[in-house]
Parts: sequence; C-alpha cells; structure tokens
Amino acid sequence: MNISTLKKVFVGRPLPTAQARHERLSKRTALAVFASDALSSVAYATEEILLILVTAGTAALAFTIPIGIAISFLIVVVASSYRQTILAYPQGGGAYIVTKDNLGTLPSLVAGGALLVDYVLTVAVSVAAGVAALTSAFPALFGHRVLLGVLFIVIIATANLRGIRESGALFALPTYLFIGSFFAMLAYGYVRWLFGWETPPPATTMHAMHNVTLFLLLRAFSQGCTALTGVEAVSDGVPAFKPSEARNARIVLSALALILVTLFMGITFLARHYHVTPMEEETVVSQLARQIFGGGLLYYEIQAVTMLILVLAANTSFADFPRLSYFLARDGFIPRQFGTRGDRLVFSNGILILGGTAAVLIIVFGGDTHALIPLYALGVFVSFTLSQSSMVRRWLVRRDEGWWWRAWLNGLGAATTGLVLLVIAVTKFADGAWVVVMLIPVLVMAFMVIHRHYDDVARQLSLDGYGGPPPIEHTVLVLVGDLHRGVTAALRYAHTLSPSARAVYVELDPDKTRRLEDKWGKWGLGIPLVVLSSPYRSLLTPFLEYVNHLLALGPNQVVTIVIPEFVPARWWQHLLHNQTALLIKGALLFRKRVVVVDVPFHLED
Amino acid sequence: MNISTLKKVFVGRPLPTAQARHERLSKRTALAVFASDALSSVAYATEEILLILVTAGTAALAFTIPIGIAISFLIVVVASSYRQTILAYPQGGGAYIVTKDNLGTLPSLVAGGALLVDYVLTVAVSVAAGVAALTSAFPALFGHRVLLGVLFIVIIATANLRGIRESGALFALPTYLFIGSFFAMLAYGYVRWLFGWETPPPATTMHAMHNVTLFLLLRAFSQGCTALTGVEAVSDGVPAFKPSEARNARIVLSALALILVTLFMGITFLARHYHVTPMEEETVVSQLARQIFGGGLLYYEIQAVTMLILVLAANTSFADFPRLSYFLARDGFIPRQFGTRGDRLVFSNGILILGGTAAVLIIVFGGDTHALIPLYALGVFVSFTLSQSSMVRRWLVRRDEGWWWRAWLNGLGAATTGLVLLVIAVTKFADGAWVVVMLIPVLVMAFMVIHRHYDDVARQLSLDGYGGPPPIEHTVLVLVGDLHRGVTAALRYAHTLSPSARAVYVELDPDKTRRLEDKWGKWGLGIPLVVLSSPYRSLLTPFLEYVNHLLALGPNQVVTIVIPEFVPARWWQHLLHNQTALLIKGALLFRKRVVVVDVPFHLED
Repeated sequence: MNISTLKKVFVGRPLPTAQARHERLSKRTALAVFASDALSSVAYATEEILLILVTAGTAALAFTIPIGIAISFLIVVVASSYRQTILAYPQGGGAYIVTKDNLGTLPSLVAGGALLVDYVLTVAVSVAAGVAALTSAFPALFGHRVLLGVLFIVIIATANLRGIRESGALFALPTYLFIGSFFAMLAYGYVRWLFGWETPPPATTMHAMHNVTLFLLLRAFSQGCTALTGVEAVSDGVPAFKPSEARNARIVLSALALILVTLFMGITFLARHYHVTPMEEETVVSQLARQIFGGGLLYYEIQAVTMLILVLAANTSFADFPRLSYFLARDGFIPRQFGTRGDRLVFSNGILILGGTAAVLIIVFGGDTHALIPLYALGVFVSFTLSQSSMVRRWLVRRDEGWWWRAWLNGLGAATTGLVLLVIAVTKFADGAWVVVMLIPVLVMAFMVIHRHYDDVARQLSLDGYGGPPPIEHTVLVLVGDLHRGVTAALRYAHTLSPSARAVYVELDPDKTRRLEDKWGKWGLGIPLVVLSSPYRSLLTPFLEYVNHLLALGPNQVVTIVIPEFVPARWWQHLLHNQTALLIKGALLFRKRVVVVDVPFHLED
Repeated sequence: MNISTLKKVFVGRPLPTAQARHERLSKRTALAVFASDALSSVAYATEEILLILVTAGTAALAFTIPIGIAISFLIVVVASSYRQTILAYPQGGGAYIVTKDNLGTLPSLVAGGALLVDYVLTVAVSVAAGVAALTSAFPALFGHRVLLGVLFIVIIATANLRGIRESGALFALPTYLFIGSFFAMLAYGYVRWLFGWETPPPATTMHAMHNVTLFLLLRAFSQGCTALTGVEAVSDGVPAFKPSEARNARIVLSALALILVTLFMGITFLARHYHVTPMEEETVVSQLARQIFGGGLLYYEIQAVTMLILVLAANTSFADFPRLSYFLARDGFIPRQFGTRGDRLVFSNGILILGGTAAVLIIVFGGDTHALIPLYALGVFVSFTLSQSSMVRRWLVRRDEGWWWRAWLNGLGAATTGLVLLVIAVTKFADGAWVVVMLIPVLVMAFMVIHRHYDDVARQLSLDGYGGPPPIEHTVLVLVGDLHRGVTAALRYAHTLSPSARAVYVELDPDKTRRLEDKWGKWGLGIPLVVLSSPYRSLLTPFLEYVNHLLALGPNQVVTIVIPEFVPARWWQHLLHNQTALLIKGALLFRKRVVVVDVPFHLED
C-alpha cells in the first residue's frame, strides 16, 4: 500500500472544485454550530476558580459567587459589544479583518497572532477537559490521559482533512443534548436543594496555604475568564446565516450569552451548595453530577455530553485556525502554502499545523487541563480588546446614525476587556502566561519578515519595465567517465540539445584515457572529447575549473552539464555505484548560469 | 568554516598522485612494522587463559603452563608453514589471494570475509586492551573506558586518513622499546625468583565454580590462541622488504615467532610464580610489573609501552583492512568505492568503515577486552587453514623441487590450524563466536550478490554488438504557473534547447488563465502555451497525463521538462515557496525517456 492509497483510505478521494458548497444556517442550527466553543467552557471554568480559591482555605470559597457574577457581567458586556460588530460587518467580522480595516496592519497582526495562539490552546484545553470528563467517569483511564488526548486530536484532524462541514446534523444533536441535560441537571439539583430532600455533605476543611489577597482573587477571576472564549465566534460567521444575516446573528449571540451565563452561574451556585472542591482525578462537574443523580445512567449521560461538547469545541478551532491562516497567507504574512485548498477542498496545511501543535501541547503538559489554563484566554482577550477598539474608531470616523452611543458601548467593551487582559497577563504571568506574552511579538515579527520577503520577490520577478531575459550563449557538456551504452544515450541526447555539444573526461590514469580515446572513434557519435588532467585525482576540481572558464567567456554564457546516470533496478544497488552525479549536482546547486541535466539509463535487473 | 576547510585541518591538503611512494624496509624496520600486531597479544593472551581456568578454582591454574606450551607449539607450526608461503608468493601472499589462486573463488571469499571480520576485531580488542593498560596504571580513568577507546580509534583513523605510512621511524621506537622493556622485566623477574630475593605472595584460594573438564581446558586454550593473530602479517607484506625480499621476510618471520614465544611463555611462567590472578580493574601484565618493580617509574614505563604497542597493533589493521577491501573491490565483490584512493592517496572508505565498526564494537561491548575476546581469532584461523590448504594444493599441482616435504609441512599447518579452528568455534560458540560463525557466510553471500550485480551491469552497458543508441524524437516542455522574469528566462533557455518548445499551464482558476494569456502575447517569446484543465485542482495529475500522452506517440519520444525555479537568497526562504519543482521531480524520478531540467533564477535578497 503506497502513500497515495493510504491517503485515500484516511482522507478520501479528491473532490472536484465544483463541489464547494456554502450552506446557510437557520438560527437553531447556527446556535448549535457557534455555541459549542463558548458553552463547553462551563465544563471547567467553575473548577478553575475553585482551584485558586481553595489554596486560601475553605473559607475563601465564599468568593466564588462574586467572582462568578463579575464574569457574567463581562459576558454580557462583550456580547453587547459584539452585537455592534455583527451589524457593521455582515460579511464576517473576525478580529484580524476588523482591526486591519480600522487600526491598520500592525494591530491586525497582533490580533491575528494572538488568535492563532488561542486557537491552538482551545484545541489543547478542550481535548484535555474532554478527556478529563471521560476519565472522571472511568478512573481506570486516568493513566492514559496523554494517549487519549492525542487520539482525540488525530480523529478530529482526520475528520477535518476529509472535509466535514459545520453542518447542522453533526452539531445540533450534541449541543442541544448538552444544553438540555445541563439544564435538567441544574433544575433537579435546585429542586432537591429547595425542597430540602437532602443535607449536603459537610464541607471538608482545607488548610490554607495562602492568605486571601486581592491578587489571589484576581487570579481566580482570570482563570474563570476562560468562560468567555468562543463568544466571538458568531460575529466571525455572519455570512453563514440565512437572511437577514445580521439580524439572525444578533439574536443567536444574545441567546448564546443568556444560556452561557445561566449554565455557568447555575453550576457555580450548586458547586458551592454541595461543597464541591476540586480533586485531581475527578472534575467538579462530574462530582456535582454524581451528587445530584447519585451515579447511574444519568450521571454517565452528563459525562458523555460534556465530553462531546468539548470535542466539538476543539473542532471549531479546526475551522477557525485554517480560515485565519488563509487570510494571513492571502495578505502575505505567513507562507503561501496556507492559502491553498487541498484535494478535499480544505486548507490541509492549517489543519495539520493546528493538530500537530495542539498534540505537542497535550504531550508537554501531560494532558492536564489545569496546567494549560494559565496560557489560555490571553490571546482571545487581546483580540477582544483590539476588535472593540477598532469598532470605536469606526464609529468615530463614520458617524453613522446613533454613532455616539454605539461608540460608547464598544468603548465600554474595549475598556473592560483591556482591563481584564491586563489582569490576566499580570496574575497568570508566572504560571505560564509569559509564554504567550513572549510568543505574540515573535509571531508578529515573523509575519513582517515574511511579508517583506514576498514583497522583495514580487519586485524582483515583476515584468514591469523589464527588458526581457538576456540572450543565451549556450554550451552543452557531457561529463563522461567511461564509454558504455548509457554514455552513448547521453551523447545522443546532448546532441539533440546542441549540435556543438562536447564531452568532457577527467583523466585519472593515462592508460584509461588511451583506451577511452580508442573507443571514442567508433562510439563517440562524432562529438569532440575534451580531456582534463587531474594531478590530485579529484574528479570535481578540474571539471569545475573548466566550467568556470566557460562561464568567464562572457556574461551571457550558459553551461548545460549532461550527466549520464544509469539507474539500477533495485534501490540497494544504488549503494554499489559512485554517486558522481549527486556530487556534481551538489557542487553546482543553485550556481548561476549553470543547468545540470541527468540523463537516466535504465538497467533491467 | 565549511566542510572542505574542516577536512583540510584534520586530514590535510590533497596529495598529487606522483607522491605515491613505495618504501623498502630493512629487516630491522620490517620486524618493527610487522611485529606489533602479533607481539601485542602478549598483553592479554596469558590473562585470557587464566580467566577461564580460575573459574575451576586455584588448582586449575596449574594447567596454564601446558596450555602455554601447546600454543607456543602452534606458533612454531604456523610460522614454519608461512615461511613456505613467503617463498611461493614474493609479491605478497595474503590469504585471499593465495586461496583464490589455488582453491578458487568461493574459498577465497570465505578467507576474505573472515579476515575483514578479524581486522575489525583486531582494532576493537587492541584498543580495549590498550585502554586497559592505561586504566590499570590510572584507575580513576576506569569509568571512562568506552570514551577513551572511541577517542583512540578516532585518532588512529584520522592519522590514517592523513596517510601515515608504515614508516620505520614511527614503528621502530615503540616496538623495540616494548621488546626491550618486556625482556628486561622478565629477566629481572627471573633473577629475583632464582636468587630467592623474595617470597611470592601466597596464592589466594579461589572457589571453583566449575570442574576441570576437557571442555574447560580447550576453552582456555582457545582464548590463548589470540596470541597467534598477526603472525600472518609478514607474508602479506613481502614486497615491502629490501631485496632479496623472500629471504629477508623469512628471517623476520622466524625472529618474530621466536620473540613471541619467548615473551608469551616468559609472562605465563612468571604469572604462575607470582600467583597472579585476573582482576576486573587491573590487567595481569600490570599486576606482574607491579610485583617485579614494586611500582615506580619502571612500572609506568611497562604500562606505557604496552599501551603503545597495542595502539600500533590496531593501526596495522588500518593498513590491512583497506588493502584487502581494495582487492575485493577490484574483483567486484564489495562496492567499487572501496577500490579508489582519496585525496591523500589512502583508501578512505575502508578506513572509515573499519574505524566506525570498531568504535561501535567498543561501545556495544562497553570497552571490555574480555567480552570481545570470544569473537576474536576465529576469523584469522579460518584464513590460516584456507591459506595453508591452498599451499598444499599448490605443491601437489606444481611439484617444484622439494614439493613433497613442503606439502607435508603446509599440510601439518593446515591440519593443526583447522583442528584449532574447530576447537575455537565449538568452545567459544556460546560466548559470542556464534556471531562470527553466522557473519562469515552472510558476508560471502553478500559478496556474491554484489559480484552478480556488477556482472549484470557490465553486460547491459557493454558496447559489444550494440547497434548504437536509439534515435530521439524530442519534445521540450516548460511548466509554467505564472509569467514573471524567472519564467521568461526559462522560456528563453527552453527555446535554445529546441525551437519547437512549448509551455504547459495547468488551469486551477479560469480567471488566472485569462490574465496569463493576456500577458503571454507580450512576454511569451512566441512559445505556444498549452492549457490543461484540472477539475480536482491537482497540478500534477493533468501534467503527468499530458507527458504520458506525448511518450505514447512513439517508442523514440523523449520529453524534456524545463521547470523555472527561483532560488531565494537565504535557506529559510525556501520554506515560503511551494516546492513544485521538487514535487514534479519526485513524481518523474527515474522515469524512462523523461528528463527534468531545473532552470534557476536567482533572487538577490
């Protein structure tokens, strides 16, 4: 089975260009498609807040509720702000495009770099959290977290290389199952609480390692801000909505924010009520579900839908990352290869890079969600801030109807997310956020270096004002080491290229030269033979000197070197022959005005 | 600093062919040159015998003396036998050549393969033993045995790549120092013994792990037979002697045998007298020297000359292995590359393979002499047996003067060494000799496969009865993806190759095609443009189909594909461009009647 067959089995047959289709989404399916990323954070956001607070002892857990409320407020502000973006960019208002449009290239590259980093982290965090949902239900799998995570990524990446679309059927079922199941669980949990059907277990008193400081509270808040990632997805995908696109998108965004706040706060309140504290081998959501349903089928259902929505969340990055890469490649900031669709009409290079990088993160961080979280959310808040600032500038410049309150609303969004960005960068810096803080400027610099290179190339290749290629004075040489059938074939070939072709022989042993000259009369096809002496027995040096001599004859001299090469029937037989052709090619690689031509002569066995 | 500069520093400048010189050796220098390999075994042979016997308890050590005598007898028989070879082969009588001459190809390949294996082991064993001599004197170095061993090999190999010769000055001093020092040590030891200046320390009673069986004694004998390796060296090198070559060589061989027996038996007797038993971290010779000289300068001198002679012994393999490789390569049994001299007039490939393999052995066996010994000596006894048997056949066929007693003498040699070979193979089989027993037939098979390949190639390339190369109907294609300066340069080049050259463009997007066609009128240099459609957006498939179509037009069709390739100024910039040229070359590599030509266009920055 060769590579091409293997590719067909895993990735599928190539698709014709005509099959590219553009599905339009109803509000109901759109919610399913765009919600998974944002909603999935419900699976870990509460836990990450508790994890920080608990280091200051059990009493500090009381701060969970105010922090949750602050995050909910932030969600409402960001969603309101993005509702403006949808209105202004019905063709799709991703942070890179919006920023480029209003603030210029450099800020847009910062937004682009930050988003690329965050997309990779979305995959890594979501997959790690999905695996955690699975291993909470089946603790025996806990030791295989890394393997499971990498396996998930391989499956998602393969599906995307085949070209699954953000199609309703795939997304709707798990997303609505997740929303339904979680609402049911919360409702049942609150009923039990209100009717006093049970006494919650007593809070286990934890030893405080830290005092409750402002820094600690801000750190807990920062960790919880991961709940906001994915809120921007709707505004990126406005053109996918059924008409009227902007209106529908705004309704879906509001619905998404409402559901997100309800689920997040619901879980946070219940976790407090049931005195759930983070454990290494079981997630908070899993502990909560176990409490409420007392194990059993319903518990496993909650874990299953949690895992599914997290896998879907990871999957959305496999659409977002290649799309952003495409924009950056189209504008010449990352290698062009990211701008071309593959056999299956998907941006394969983006998918491979994203999957590969996320898999490396899973391996390096041991598949541990908590270890990855400090790197997360920083990138998306950079893009929030830049995107909202762009909107402020846009309103100020355009002065459309209602510009002043719209600018004020986006200004509030920009100020709030900017402040949060600062809080995140400072409080999580030492925990790992420094990596992202360093990485974004490095990426921006790389974008600019690449862009300059493409500009240089375009200028050097441009036909504007070009006088045409220089004329060519052509010399064809055949390098011969002997005279046999393969050489005669090469001589004939060289003769078709130029009637004045000549053969060149480097003399290592005068006896051999005599024997060669004897044969040349009969088999040399009338091509003149140049014999070069080699006092140091080097094949290469005298030959290169001869080529240099020819090139020095004039600035338009071009030398074509024909090398007769016999091709053995089996690969190992190559080892039994001097790789002279390879040597010559290596020595002349990228040499100006020199063209090297292999003429293969095929052996049968 | 590039590779070529680096090579000059370590290996030196190339030497002109005219500098190849052939030194003739006096008897005195010849002894120094040829003795090191044989004499150096004195450093470990006694120890290896003791090492086996001691496992049967202290009493078993009494068998050391009879075993030593048996080995001495063997040395005399082999030396006498080889004196005949010198007479018959004054041009140099290595086992490979002598066997090929008298017994035919297959036996000579067995001898050749066995010797190659043994040369590698000579390097590994001698270097390991040399390092042991060093670490016996400086126990702190014991932990770095592997590193030291590899370092020694690198130094010896580098010296040989530079082309040190078996020159008198280099060899004479350490060899005669070794002989002199050891004779002095033995003399002083015997004097102390005879005059009763000291009581030897009491023998430490060792617990017997085995009974004294015939098998154990034969195993001890086999280990001691390593003393014989190198005895054949003189007969290989007869032409290096001053005239009359054969006579001088015979005298040197006899002297060598005499010295070897004296030193070997001297050490064996004294080791018994002083009750020396093998220790892991100190060699027997080192213990003996310490006993006799009581430490001090003389002790260190013994260790130094031991180390030096062992390094010289390893060095002789660096002459023998490449020489035998040259013979095998000349006859087409191993890759041709072993048959050519490099810049410095040495057979670099043989030196590199030998050094590399020996270094791997040192690493794999942890630099431990005792672990390597079981693999050693088997190969050389194969070559002894075959070489002496060849001589018997030679005398029987030629019937020169005195043929019957000469045949009898060589027959005794062949029978004795053959018997010993059997003993070695059986008694050391499980300890590691099985590797060599398996390896020799594998090598012989490889030699034969390689030989058949070279024969096949020669037949297929032969001009005998050849009608000349077929005529060529030539089509030149230029693969274009765009039209820019680089492409116009390639178009002009293609036009010099054939006035009927045509350009081929694979259409991925009809708009682009229109734009290209617009430019073509002005910049296409009048070359026709063929547009191929590609419903699956593949560049390769439509193009390959077109090439196949052209090839199918007739059996003499040859297609030359010109690929314009722009060459960025810096290596990393290659990553920013599609490697289309590489892709096409990969797809058409070794394709019959297809020639691929890159035309580079150089970018400035």
